[in-house]
Amino acid sequence: MARLKLGMVGGGQGAFIGGVHRMAARLDGEWELVAGALSSDPARAKASAEELNLARSYSDFNEMARAEAMREDGIDAVAIVTPNHMHAAPAIAFLNAGINVICDKPLAATMQDAEAIAAAARASKARFILTHNYTGYPMVRQAREMIARGDLGKIRVVQAEYAQDWLTEPASGKQAEWRVDPARSGAGGCVGDIGTHAFNLASYVLGEAPARLAADLQAFVPGRQVDDNIHVMLRYGSGARGMLWASQVAPGNENEIKIRVYGEKGGLEWAQSSANTLRYAPFGAPVQTLTRGGAAASEAAARVSRIPGGHPEGYLEAFATIYSEAAALIRADRAGIAPDGAVHAPDLEDGLAGMRFIAACIRSSKNDAAWEAL
Amino acid sequence: MARLKLGMVGGGQGAFIGGVHRMAARLDGEWELVAGALSSDPARAKASAEELNLARSYSDFNEMARAEAMREDGIDAVAIVTPNHMHAAPAIAFLNAGINVICDKPLAATMQDAEAIAAAARASKARFILTHNYTGYPMVRQAREMIARGDLGKIRVVQAEYAQDWLTEPASGKQAEWRVDPARSGAGGCVGDIGTHAFNLASYVLGEAPARLAADLQAFVPGRQVDDNIHVMLRYGSGARGMLWASQVAPGNENEIKIRVYGEKGGLEWAQSSANTLRYAPFGAPVQTLTRGGAAASEAAARVSRIPGGHPEGYLEAFATIYSEAAALIRADRAGIAPDGAVHAPDLEDGLAGMRFIAACIRSSKNDAAWEAL
Amino acid sequence: MARLKLGMVGGGQGAFIGGVHRMAARLDGEWELVAGALSSDPARAKASAEELNLARSYSDFNEMARAEAMREDGIDAVAIVTPNHMHAAPAIAFLNAGINVICDKPLAATMQDAEAIAAAARASKARFILTHNYTGYPMVRQAREMIARGDLGKIRVVQAEYAQDWLTEPASGKQAEWRVDPARSGAGGCVGDIGTHAFNLASYVLGEAPARLAADLQAFVPGRQVDDNIHVMLRYGSGARGMLWASQVAPGNENEIKIRVYGEKGGLEWAQSSANTLRYAPFGAPVQTLTRGGAAASEAAARVSRIPGGHPEGYLEAFATIYSEAAALIRADRAGIAPDGAVHAPDLEDGLAGMRFIAACIRSSKNDAAWEAL
Amino acid sequence: MARLKLGMVGGGQGAFIGGVHRMAARLDGEWELVAGALSSDPARAKASAEELNLARSYSDFNEMARAEAMREDGIDAVAIVTPNHMHAAPAIAFLNAGINVICDKPLAATMQDAEAIAAAARASKARFILTHNYTGYPMVRQAREMIARGDLGKIRVVQAEYAQDWLTEPASGKQAEWRVDPARSGAGGCVGDIGTHAFNLASYVLGEAPARLAADLQAFVPGRQVDDNIHVMLRYGSGARGMLWASQVAPGNENEIKIRVYGEKGGLEWAQSSANTLRYAPFGAPVQTLTRGGAAASEAAARVSRIPGGHPEGYLEAFATIYSEAAALIRADRAGIAPDGAVHAPDLEDGLAGMRFIAACIRSSKNDAAWEAL
Repeated sequence: MARLKLGMVGGGQGAFIGGVHRMAARLDGEWELVAGALSSDPARAKASAEELNLARSYSDFNEMARAEAMREDGIDAVAIVTPNHMHAAPAIAFLNAGINVICDKPLAATMQDAEAIAAAARASKARFILTHNYTGYPMVRQAREMIARGDLGKIRVVQAEYAQDWLTEPASGKQAEWRVDPARSGAGGCVGDIGTHAFNLASYVLGEAPARLAADLQAFVPGRQVDDNIHVMLRYGSGARGMLWASQVAPGNENEIKIRVYGEKGGLEWAQSSANTLRYAPFGAPVQTLTRGGAAASEAAARVSRIPGGHPEGYLEAFATIYSEAAALIRADRAGIAPDGAVHAPDLEDGLAGMRFIAACIRSSKNDAAWEAL
Repeated sequence: MARLKLGMVGGGQGAFIGGVHRMAARLDGEWELVAGALSSDPARAKASAEELNLARSYSDFNEMARAEAMREDGIDAVAIVTPNHMHAAPAIAFLNAGINVICDKPLAATMQDAEAIAAAARASKARFILTHNYTGYPMVRQAREMIARGDLGKIRVVQAEYAQDWLTEPASGKQAEWRVDPARSGAGGCVGDIGTHAFNLASYVLGEAPARLAADLQAFVPGRQVDDNIHVMLRYGSGARGMLWASQVAPGNENEIKIRVYGEKGGLEWAQSSANTLRYAPFGAPVQTLTRGGAAASEAAARVSRIPGGHPEGYLEAFATIYSEAAALIRADRAGIAPDGAVHAPDLEDGLAGMRFIAACIRSSKNDAAWEAL
Repeated sequence: MARLKLGMVGGGQGAFIGGVHRMAARLDGEWELVAGALSSDPARAKASAEELNLARSYSDFNEMARAEAMREDGIDAVAIVTPNHMHAAPAIAFLNAGINVICDKPLAATMQDAEAIAAAARASKARFILTHNYTGYPMVRQAREMIARGDLGKIRVVQAEYAQDWLTEPASGKQAEWRVDPARSGAGGCVGDIGTHAFNLASYVLGEAPARLAADLQAFVPGRQVDDNIHVMLRYGSGARGMLWASQVAPGNENEIKIRVYGEKGGLEWAQSSANTLRYAPFGAPVQTLTRGGAAASEAAARVSRIPGGHPEGYLEAFATIYSEAAALIRADRAGIAPDGAVHAPDLEDGLAGMRFIAACIRSSKNDAAWEAL
Repeated sequence: MARLKLGMVGGGQGAFIGGVHRMAARLDGEWELVAGALSSDPARAKASAEELNLARSYSDFNEMARAEAMREDGIDAVAIVTPNHMHAAPAIAFLNAGINVICDKPLAATMQDAEAIAAAARASKARFILTHNYTGYPMVRQAREMIARGDLGKIRVVQAEYAQDWLTEPASGKQAEWRVDPARSGAGGCVGDIGTHAFNLASYVLGEAPARLAADLQAFVPGRQVDDNIHVMLRYGSGARGMLWASQVAPGNENEIKIRVYGEKGGLEWAQSSANTLRYAPFGAPVQTLTRGGAAASEAAARVSRIPGGHPEGYLEAFATIYSEAAALIRADRAGIAPDGAVHAPDLEDGLAGMRFIAACIRSSKNDAAWEAL
């Protein structure tokens, strides 16, 4: 099959996540990057496009949306990889132009922006996909499948965490600076940048978002205007309880995202640092190490796995799965058929849930950690 | 040196913690068990005493306190290893008789009992020691020492947890039954049985107890009258924040107590499942695995270490350290001298702090997780 | 820069390693697969080519070599991903046609084939690259760099191992069958398939191949015609000693390749199952966990690393590095300049060393594990 | 039951293993140390005895054997904890006096000494027990039990190793000095000190000693007169093959003893650094982590386990098991009954096998790693 054509907004020289999106889009051979508005700085946009050998480089995303929508060989989707406050405008422009959007998380810097994206997405026939990439890990998919089919029984407790250390000291460098500037990242710092990942991971694996939360947010680094450590207690409609910790000031944690779930019949643990395994504890029996590709790998895990067990897949592979799922969805749309029921990718609703999570955390924390509905 | 003489209240046939105390008391050769009121059931008390080859068996602890206080070769200390609601009466009897007390945790089943013990302890010249045994691990001692001397800088975040799975289903068996009966264990279930251990461990390592907490307690198992899972957020007077999770319904966790501490200059992690090492992350440098007995073992760790690095010490060794520290304190008392400054053991204040922790958790949880002072 | 054009021999439907080569070639955007003789079965070759949307499909590799050499837009390199006994013929055809070859390991099924490839490679101006992919892992590169610069002092001991379990029972399935058929895999089974990887990894990291070895090979599975477990003792010219164990009948080992090196001043350990870290033990100081992307990541590791520390890279990324290094070498050749000194990839000499290793192991084992020169 | 009475030869101030024996003897309350010839230096013997509050101190072990044999309350066993070259004389003296002997390993410094001990043991009605303490670990016992009952099927491969780093540099200190002095340690260095432990562990777990071995021994540290690193290939009469590595010059290994066994139906791995678990891989199913005290703990493990799963037991507990087994054997002898069939401890035959292992390794290594029968 011919590759789908991808455009990109943001991701010029010096960017981090743009390069990740490009590698992820390439890995499975489903996408070809052909167009971009890679930087708001025209010189950087041009240089970046040349470096990437892009067929079509634009200096403005509005122009890009217009032009690509009119071309017969126009892009099948656009990847939006700008800082958070720059998600809404391009997303809306492409959605309005009927072009599928693959947007980095969180959805936006403000709830207002998020709602504007939602309105555009609902009015458009194009798809909106959000790269909550941790849902692309095969063993995360297996965890969700096992919980959905009742392997753990009724869920009681969930412990989610995402710890980093790179903002232990005052920020310096392009990546750090925008993330601690509320004008660019939104009112949430750590809560938006990685708290939303942990929240999404927990919601995805459980198949249920919490109903209420109580949050205690801190900005430990002197002068920092956004939170850099969050403690959250969670209550679920089903009766489960949880805790979520995210931190960017925890030395010794490069990028540790981890989830543990306990139910009446068993427990599950997954951590990115051992991404190819899932620790499964059926109550009353020995703990099992389930492996991607091993005897107990589930259908959901096998579907998004590329190589045999024991050959580790990592972060880029999980990210690539989001792109391949997006391709499958878009190809089905093109063909006018329903996609295979197993295919799925994070979408607008995930994005809105993340925004509600950020807002509820901030409200709760300002209100001395009172319970807030999500 | 001649061994100190130990008595025991509780710990007859079928008990768990009594046997642990006896092994701990024996290991370093500092104590000889010579007397006991091992059970409130006289037949079991007698049979247990014979099995243990005890010189002096009593059917009543009051009688034992009286008799031992009058003997020239009377016991130097009594170990109280009964269920929680049976701590106060014997503790007070022995304290009143001027006999040192080594009491299992938590201090008591009720705050009223705890205060009665405190009054007796303050009025007595005898020592009161509480077996918060996790403070006996060499690498826990090293963690405390490193934090005290500033290796981590100002502390920001502490994550403490203690997870078990043995009460995942309705309790059966002697050990389980009294722990889920509020009349015997006190109003707290998990919070008292293991939450206090995690709380004590965090307070010990940080050298500071939290000022306030917000707690969400649950009893997941149908019909259970005490909590079996607790989620707690912590605020410290110094500005640090923390989370504490304890659970007895987390399948796959036999007995996992763990602490992680992060400061401005570095992080530390310790878990009982790898008790002989301490993970030390100086910010901006590679993570180091500090070992008991290794090049970076501190003085505080070496003092309570018995064998070279690489030869694992475990739970009984840590517990034995509490007994050996107790012996050193009592010998110093006998000699009328101050004990070596490095010698220390958990005491009445630790016990009272634990009781305040239990009470504050219960109050907060009843009040929808409102903040409560400790 | 425009992508280099890649051809492929083998790798049709049902193949394993062909798909790996394709993903590896795509990941960094350096290669575009444009031509192939994907199967010796013409129908499968055609179907496979269509599935992959190949511009040019050939039913015969000789024809492919001829045709591609004559096209102006002919391929820049061919990937040879057939079973071992089918390496020599296509490799020689493409080398003779002046086309760069990227060949899967081991070099060939027989020493005679290997020598024929060597002759062709030496006579050709084209490059010959062998995909000993484990040398593409950043932390493997760092291990080599640290040893080369003397961080461990003079090397004394190396322990290499590669354990699998998939051939624990008699082989079934396409992947298994040819690997245990001496006509297709060569006289070595386990020794050729994975023993050569462990041998290459050790040689790469040490910067020195052993001078002599003593090997004990076994075929444990009844009826198996090639070895499935090998025990080898190694002696190096420098005075170092080593052991190498490879097995395909070790249940619980999906694909565990690991190396440990000890010198006068320190030790290093790396295992694929924790590929993003390197355990470094400077003698007399705490063990350090060096991470890809962390504070102590070396230049050699950073050069071939794509994403920040804590975001795991895996098997495909390491494999992709071989392709990107190949691209850099070929681009330099095209430009008539010397490649950057840091760029390197396994080559003919590695392949010949691997063949000598296989042959010496078989000779030694037949001779009751007598020492054999390599 | 009244405690058995223990005497000790060696183990005075400054010794290592003597203190270990004393703690091990105390832990389970089966032994009371009452007599000793703690040092060949009379002043040190006296001071050590006072420190230990010994009832009876001797300056000469011959005198001690004589005197204790004649007392009505004489010792039930003597622990011999001297350097290797000083095992034979006291062992023979006590055996001749009809007193049970608990001797540290290896059996002796020379084969001649070993045979003299054997002759004395065979002529005596007293027991001879050798403290191959690793056989006291509950999960090692479980491994042996699982293999014996066929859980792994026919055994194919065993990988045993014991790595240390403390002799990486020229020896200094009392513990190091005698171990590298052939006059005191015997002709074997590393092979005798820790190689015998790995050999014994493998033989114990498999229930079979190798029939032949090929060994390559090295003394890496300049001037060292005994080996400090050994590489050994093993062949078993049953058809299994193995490798054994022991080293005292492997930086980063404090004291890592580990065994892996693979059979037709599954694999098992145990390492002292995670002594409370056993990794069990039934072929074709997920790997299980069996825990001491967990659901899958076997009868053999439970018998020698003191505290519930999740409460780590360590080196001293395993060592204590040897003492408790010795007590059970001796009590049965006293009672004139056969001990419980599950009770067992390493004995003379283990000691002789260890001596043959040392001798065969040295012979083989001198003969260029030729195969030698054991």
